[in-house]
Amino acid sequence: MKDFSYYAPTQVVFGRGTEDQVSDLIRKYGGSKVLVHYGGGSAVRSGLLSRITAGLEAAGIAYVTLGGVVPNPRLSMVRRGIGLCREQGVDFLLAVGGGSVIDSCKAISMGVPYEGDVWDFYAGKAKPSEWLPVGCVLTLPASGSEMSDSSVITNDDGGIKKGFNTDGYRCRFAVMDPELTYTLPAWQTACGAVDIMMHTMERYFSKDDDMAVTDALAEGLLRTVLSVAPKVLAQPRSYVLRSQLMWAGSLSHNGLTGCGTTGDWATHKLEHELSGMFDVSHGAGLAALWGSWARYVRKENMSRFVRFAVNVMGVEQDFRSPEATAEAGICALEDFFRSLGMPVSIHELTGREITDAEIAEMADKCSGWGTMSVGSLMKLSRSDMENIYRMAR
Amino acid sequence: MKDFSYYAPTQVVFGRGTEDQVSDLIRKYGGSKVLVHYGGGSAVRSGLLSRITAGLEAAGIAYVTLGGVVPNPRLSMVRRGIGLCREQGVDFLLAVGGGSVIDSCKAISMGVPYEGDVWDFYAGKAKPSEWLPVGCVLTLPASGSEMSDSSVITNDDGGIKKGFNTDGYRCRFAVMDPELTYTLPAWQTACGAVDIMMHTMERYFSKDDDMAVTDALAEGLLRTVLSVAPKVLAQPRSYVLRSQLMWAGSLSHNGLTGCGTTGDWATHKLEHELSGMFDVSHGAGLAALWGSWARYVRKENMSRFVRFAVNVMGVEQDFRSPEATAEAGICALEDFFRSLGMPVSIHELTGREITDAEIAEMADKCSGWGTMSVGSLMKLSRSDMENIYRMAR
Repeated sequence: MKDFSYYAPTQVVFGRGTEDQVSDLIRKYGGSKVLVHYGGGSAVRSGLLSRITAGLEAAGIAYVTLGGVVPNPRLSMVRRGIGLCREQGVDFLLAVGGGSVIDSCKAISMGVPYEGDVWDFYAGKAKPSEWLPVGCVLTLPASGSEMSDSSVITNDDGGIKKGFNTDGYRCRFAVMDPELTYTLPAWQTACGAVDIMMHTMERYFSKDDDMAVTDALAEGLLRTVLSVAPKVLAQPRSYVLRSQLMWAGSLSHNGLTGCGTTGDWATHKLEHELSGMFDVSHGAGLAALWGSWARYVRKENMSRFVRFAVNVMGVEQDFRSPEATAEAGICALEDFFRSLGMPVSIHELTGREITDAEIAEMADKCSGWGTMSVGSLMKLSRSDMENIYRMAR
Repeated sequence: MKDFSYYAPTQVVFGRGTEDQVSDLIRKYGGSKVLVHYGGGSAVRSGLLSRITAGLEAAGIAYVTLGGVVPNPRLSMVRRGIGLCREQGVDFLLAVGGGSVIDSCKAISMGVPYEGDVWDFYAGKAKPSEWLPVGCVLTLPASGSEMSDSSVITNDDGGIKKGFNTDGYRCRFAVMDPELTYTLPAWQTACGAVDIMMHTMERYFSKDDDMAVTDALAEGLLRTVLSVAPKVLAQPRSYVLRSQLMWAGSLSHNGLTGCGTTGDWATHKLEHELSGMFDVSHGAGLAALWGSWARYVRKENMSRFVRFAVNVMGVEQDFRSPEATAEAGICALEDFFRSLGMPVSIHELTGREITDAEIAEMADKCSGWGTMSVGSLMKLSRSDMENIYRMAR
């Protein structure tokens, strides 16, 4: 069992109409001039954005808006946000959207007080020491960014996607109204469900398998998403079902499911190259890769994959063959992904067979041109990465 | 499903030797003059206290000590602590111990900056607006006070025990080293296990039974304690087993298991009168009362008690009789309590049959002389309270 630190200070405000509390929350956490950051048109079309800005006006809180954050949020937008915040003297960042918008806010948060270029943090060249406070109104349960210490940004120059972790920009508050997710398309809902599960699974597939409390919580969360996600697709306007998915999303990435375990994160890192290169949805990319990763690494802790098959996927244990049980568990999750309309191979994801050159380029980037490994259950070298991409092709 | 707010900002530092980080943590959270508050002799005998004070000295942090906190911590000690803090200019409170010491610190935390008497808060006559920061080194997993927003204090004058809740005095940090719990006597370990389970069960037995995520986490935590607690009694120096109990204790009372549900808390309130009057261990008092409470109220949500029996206690469902299944679940938990050496009736707890007059006095106090009800699954009137005490007699 690994020592751990658990720190999840975000105040969650969960329920119908909670977005009406945003102004009070911003004031509570010291904001007086706000950047309202958002993505595409849905926050505008739904009227959410104008309700929030009307609330800020009524409360006498000054604000500027910056929309247009795209999935796999771009460094160029982060730089625009930093410029705008400095110019306008912004002291609080409000993300209205999903993980991309929150991640963009987090990057702006550490970029504004920093003299150098914000990419330095993602490139590992600098560490932040100051942050603007961030809050969010979550509209897409998936990334868990509303309670996590991480952000992922794509550098427009070369499509390189990098993550960064710090407690400094964790959201001060996260407003979660499940009704705001009623109109999410099935595809996005399904991608979110995969991402939620993977945040727990990246921590679950570990060599430290003696943390019973963490396992119980992880397996409970995974079973809940397995049960709830297909029902949400069938009943997209169910408050109770949308609530489960939303809350499971936060709990899967606030550290709770990793207490005492060593996270693996190889699938996430392999996927970052995939969505960096092909601009596909992160959740779909994870679904396309996970089975191949699992088959490649399961020998490192077969009993863990057996446990997952039995406790999470409900597979009947074949006591003569751990391999067969593990394989049945992997197949069962792939079947589940398919049932949500998710791809389980790269060609299903991108619509074509990717080339050897593309695989080589992704493995190059993911391994820092052969200088780094990823994963902890099994440390993957550059050639392991190529093998997994090829298996998933 | 109820709207909810979830806020658990305590930084948990979990692992072997983590008590050596106390000085750094105090500094991080702004402490320069510390009250080191503790209970009886075990923190002294084990050398823990002198290691902590030596660490403070080495770090150049001034401190005063105040020992002697007893189980069911007393208002008189809280008042002494408040006086000492004012006299010495203390700006940080460090609890070294279990729930009693932490609760005493929490009471001191809001008492120091308050002009009136600290009991005002517990008596519902005033609300705190300022707090000294609190941190803790946990030595007894039970109360969950290390991450909770609550404290319970006994007024020496009349033995009245009252709780108070506020985010203001939540611990800034909680240092948890499972090795510090190796020498806990079996009785205290068992009382702790009961208390831990009851913190989840008070939230689980609710009329709001559509929160699948919360149920999954609650049932997972309960099953873990059921599995781990007897093993801890058999192997008191097992790091992994002690860890499970310790971490389960924090997660059972930091709000996580109550997201979306209405807490009941009747058993806790009935028990407060019992331990207020007889000065018995809180966990043992809960074990003595719970079965009677459960049998008295189960008709209010029989399917919940059936679910508990099947999902938590592993009882085989009798599809013809929900009552029989529910009863089997209650009996199974009482058997479990017995297996830990816990009482399941008041006479087993106190060693004698309590009198009608004593029952009447407890029901009087618990109901504010007939002016208040307790519980939410079933609102218990004064006469309901008498009935439950009598059933448990």
